[in-house]
Amino acid sequence: MTVVAVGTLAFDSIETPYDRRADALGGSATYFAYAASFFTPVQLVGVVGEDFGDAHLEALRRRGVDTSGVEIAKGKSFRWSGRYEADWNTRHTLDTQLNVFEHFDPKVPQAFRSSPFVFLANAAPDIQLKALTQCTGKRFVMADTMNLWIDIAKDGLLELLRHVDGVVLNDEEARLLTGERHLLRAARKVLDLGPRFVVLKKGEHGAFLIGSDVHFALPAYPVDTVVDPTGAGDSFAGGFLGYLASVRNTDPRTLRRAMLYGTVTASYCVEGFSVETLGAIDRSRVEARFNELFSLVSL
Amino acid sequence: MTVVAVGTLAFDSIETPYDRRADALGGSATYFAYAASFFTPVQLVGVVGEDFGDAHLEALRRRGVDTSGVEIAKGKSFRWSGRYEADWNTRHTLDTQLNVFEHFDPKVPQAFRSSPFVFLANAAPDIQLKALTQCTGKRFVMADTMNLWIDIAKDGLLELLRHVDGVVLNDEEARLLTGERHLLRAARKVLDLGPRFVVLKKGEHGAFLIGSDVHFALPAYPVDTVVDPTGAGDSFAGGFLGYLASVRNTDPRTLRRAMLYGTVTASYCVEGFSVETLGAIDRSRVEARFNELFSLVSL
Repeated sequence: MTVVAVGTLAFDSIETPYDRRADALGGSATYFAYAASFFTPVQLVGVVGEDFGDAHLEALRRRGVDTSGVEIAKGKSFRWSGRYEADWNTRHTLDTQLNVFEHFDPKVPQAFRSSPFVFLANAAPDIQLKALTQCTGKRFVMADTMNLWIDIAKDGLLELLRHVDGVVLNDEEARLLTGERHLLRAARKVLDLGPRFVVLKKGEHGAFLIGSDVHFALPAYPVDTVVDPTGAGDSFAGGFLGYLASVRNTDPRTLRRAMLYGTVTASYCVEGFSVETLGAIDRSRVEARFNELFSLVSL
Repeated sequence: MTVVAVGTLAFDSIETPYDRRADALGGSATYFAYAASFFTPVQLVGVVGEDFGDAHLEALRRRGVDTSGVEIAKGKSFRWSGRYEADWNTRHTLDTQLNVFEHFDPKVPQAFRSSPFVFLANAAPDIQLKALTQCTGKRFVMADTMNLWIDIAKDGLLELLRHVDGVVLNDEEARLLTGERHLLRAARKVLDLGPRFVVLKKGEHGAFLIGSDVHFALPAYPVDTVVDPTGAGDSFAGGFLGYLASVRNTDPRTLRRAMLYGTVTASYCVEGFSVETLGAIDRSRVEARFNELFSLVSL
């Protein structure tokens, strides 16, 4: 089944302790689409500037991603630049230029509206809600967010949470949203806000899946060499939701499997800058690492 | 089956961001014995000073720990004091007084020597080897160590590693010992030094079990409130080896189970100062949390 993904397509400039890239393809919807498209057709909704060019969109289309919901607006594309410290967990945003994304008014094409699976990447909650309202065929919705919206748009975020099945948070966001330091208690408080489940990401230390009907803890896949953590969360979401859509199932056992697939796509993501690694591998590499991870965590 | 444990019995003075304790019962062998004694009889080898008193030993005996290998020497017991920062991962040693442990010459009682399971807690490798040589009935040996010995007694440590089945290391120790930054590659290099497996501890982020015939990753049990992390590693080892000894088996499937039991006893350990929590619970509480963890990580 198809997945609609709403979010950013961007250019990132990234410094790590070991290397750097300028103006590399980035954006939450980009990473999500690359990861999800191993599993299922993706329908992308977003906005780019006149500087974006068609090559990146063409690469997405070759992966089975429908880019007809990507508006090309006058102006420049979203740009982000950041620097990582050697522990990979500390990230400094050096510059954010919203550009055409500043006035993004999501328009979900008619052909996308019947899609049962929807991913709302990190954006202002009112943008996420506006997109969601147009997805009239939605049956399973996941959303991401960030500290900024918890700080400045909490009411909108709480409204959004009443309309999603799953939410993706990192540990810091879960604590900020609920005021609860203990991660699992924080997760349970998030469930009271509406979602059926929360995916709690702890970066290189794995993730929890906490829901009314499922409790699951998974270590991260131990990658050999981290090159660039940018996009790991969206790549996780892409593997997770792409897999669910491909098997048309969201029962607890399938959600656990999806956690492994999300971990696998995130692990490939961080092994290269931008979508370099995700763009270079095929489904068989995803399955090989899934099997390896499955064996590593089997009791 | 019985487990012989060789290590320290000590008094610890501990400061955390939230509380403190002075002169609390501590020591690697103490924590190990408390944790292992949920599962199997423990035979303790160590040395205390005249200040240790009999109450702590009597409490151990009531748990089925044979303390006849604990020598009472002239002088004061080992004392350690330290302070934890709020992230729990940063520990500052404020003071270490070896006292009677400085000239510790382990004497394994005749009655202990036939014990098939042996745990060598962190100590100078020549002390560990001296004890091990006396354990003539040994069939399965595990050892712990620390950065200090990797730095100043590496030859002795390498000799020791040729005689143990399993070694417990944290991520920093594994990297220091092998010169390899990547954790799993570091673990595989440790296997080349002799042990059949390595338990790689990552504190609150879980542990890996890497062996010639087993690869297993386990998240930590998400404890509600950490009170004092002191002894977590030795409590892990106690649960791990105590369980193995109780089922008289060390095949890969049993080693994976042992990882869960070690995680459980370590989780109880950190919920109180000293052995307060380990001393207050019974086997049924261990089994209850084992079942909870088992369910949390089941695929």
